[in-house]
Amino acid sequence: MSVLTGPVEIVGTGLIGTSIALACRRAGLDVLLSDTAPEHVRTASGLGAGRPRTPEDVPQLVVVAVPPDALGTTIRAALDAAAPDTVVTDVGSVKAAPLDAVAGHPAASRYVGSHPMAGTEHSGPLSANPFLFDGRPWAIAAGPGAAPAAIRVVQALVELCGALPVRLTPAEHDKAVARTSHVPHLLASLVAGTLAGAAPEHLALSGTGVRDVTRVAGGDPQLYSQIIGGNASAVAALLAEVRDRLDLLLEAVGSGDRAGLESLLSHGLAGTRAIPGKHGGPPQPMVELHVAVPDHPGELARLFADAGDSGVNIEDVRIDHDPGRPVGLVELDVAAERAEELRAALESKGWVTHR
Amino acid sequence: MSVLTGPVEIVGTGLIGTSIALACRRAGLDVLLSDTAPEHVRTASGLGAGRPRTPEDVPQLVVVAVPPDALGTTIRAALDAAAPDTVVTDVGSVKAAPLDAVAGHPAASRYVGSHPMAGTEHSGPLSANPFLFDGRPWAIAAGPGAAPAAIRVVQALVELCGALPVRLTPAEHDKAVARTSHVPHLLASLVAGTLAGAAPEHLALSGTGVRDVTRVAGGDPQLYSQIIGGNASAVAALLAEVRDRLDLLLEAVGSGDRAGLESLLSHGLAGTRAIPGKHGGPPQPMVELHVAVPDHPGELARLFADAGDSGVNIEDVRIDHDPGRPVGLVELDVAAERAEELRAALESKGWVTHR
Repeated sequence: MSVLTGPVEIVGTGLIGTSIALACRRAGLDVLLSDTAPEHVRTASGLGAGRPRTPEDVPQLVVVAVPPDALGTTIRAALDAAAPDTVVTDVGSVKAAPLDAVAGHPAASRYVGSHPMAGTEHSGPLSANPFLFDGRPWAIAAGPGAAPAAIRVVQALVELCGALPVRLTPAEHDKAVARTSHVPHLLASLVAGTLAGAAPEHLALSGTGVRDVTRVAGGDPQLYSQIIGGNASAVAALLAEVRDRLDLLLEAVGSGDRAGLESLLSHGLAGTRAIPGKHGGPPQPMVELHVAVPDHPGELARLFADAGDSGVNIEDVRIDHDPGRPVGLVELDVAAERAEELRAALESKGWVTHR
Repeated sequence: MSVLTGPVEIVGTGLIGTSIALACRRAGLDVLLSDTAPEHVRTASGLGAGRPRTPEDVPQLVVVAVPPDALGTTIRAALDAAAPDTVVTDVGSVKAAPLDAVAGHPAASRYVGSHPMAGTEHSGPLSANPFLFDGRPWAIAAGPGAAPAAIRVVQALVELCGALPVRLTPAEHDKAVARTSHVPHLLASLVAGTLAGAAPEHLALSGTGVRDVTRVAGGDPQLYSQIIGGNASAVAALLAEVRDRLDLLLEAVGSGDRAGLESLLSHGLAGTRAIPGKHGGPPQPMVELHVAVPDHPGELARLFADAGDSGVNIEDVRIDHDPGRPVGLVELDVAAERAEELRAALESKGWVTHR
């Protein structure tokens, strides 16, 4: 039996908070909702995410799910109000700053920060889903003074949500997300910035590469300035390394040093191979198969039906935006050793494919 | 009737050259093949891409499709050997350098450089496809001395391949691809480089964002060092701008200047919106719908069949790699005004969706 028996209080009923609430309700726990916007509580409650918290309620676990800039004060307030056994966690995207904010609090040992790696492009309780965390990494970043019993309660929440607990110190966590999230976001944003105001006939040459590189830069600048600003020291340290390497790159390009340029590109290639593969395993050799697909409803269904009949699993799909024709190119990623089989199966059904 | 009547000679029977050859054969033209590797000519010829060139053949158009570093000398050699009316083009990814290489050649007015925006991740004639260029932009970058008749022949080739001609000067072309391709590639490579050698428990927090940003950095370093090195001055100029902006970013992050950080992120957001949308139109408001899909053959087919039944067109698809579970999250991009309709249709068929 889980050590998490409830009630669970959710402070902040946005996308993440309401999704956690729904997952807890699904597991049969009593869920208490609070938010500075009462209409959010009503909406979340109407979705079956729990009931408004009353002053008599005594939660076992408080989950603080508020915007980055409000984390510290909200966590302290939760500890101030907590019963002697209540555990407090938060789901903010940085972990050293909230820990600093509770330093010296008499109940600080019952605070254990955490961070689910799940979608943040959309917001609000209406986008919530109890499966949001299914199979996703969820960092648990306990401070050195955290009580083991409190850590166990937070770990139970992570497991209840179907996520994969990843234990890191708060400082390690912040360095990790600087590397895997914040610095990539900033560099994507710099690349995207070079497109703003460019001549349309130049932008007409945009292919899939630049779309991929810049996609995350489409996120909300206000939210990301809070997230990244809250992790300033880890981000600045890594960004300074990137700047130094950019200087080397600029020197290699400017001086015609092909070997230097190739060496920097090879370092990048090695980095792409370091990203863990599907299901947490080592990266698998994949092959891309391109298929021409008429751009109207039903054609993708026919393609995937034919692909499904082949018995070859498709690991990833992308539709290559085609700037001029009512035909899309669909890119199917499949395990290298099954690619020919899939290609033959699709060609036999009349699809035009190429590698 | 097209001004392109053949024969067309393809010099370099790799992916691009053989694909052009196949498109020309499909249009009924006589195609002559040559390559420094005789086995490539045999392979391409075996695929129906044309016949080996003989000394007696007189091509109307020579298409030079060789690696970047060999472009200049191969184009000059083609002009040296050309009959008085033969036109020469190339499909290299930079355009100022090959034009410089033919400067002063007596037949220089019959050289018109071009550049199809089509896949280069794979190589060799076996990956070739006559539809490779269908609907893709194809830059035509004539120098100031190019003969109008020569430009018309190259334009006819572009149209025969089903591509969309984009007229630019060679210098403009090189600036455009520095912006839409080379600098994004280099920055993706720098981001990827920060992952090389990082702790596996840090990399475990990698989400879709960093995978998107770094995807192009998986390209062949040797090929890209030739491509980017061949466009050194345009790349270095833009890269220097990015470096200056990175310094501003570093200062904003380091000094806690949230407004400055947000302003840089907003500039990036504006850039993502400048990229042309599907079918060359203005970017459309899109919404992402996430659907949980069991990770085995047939489930994607069922999803797309249900989506097809709804009559809502799916503009893009991505499978979100799920590091721990045999369930994938599929992200469907649809026009904002049709999203609720699709969501309702899928939910009614038992799919679990969220925005």
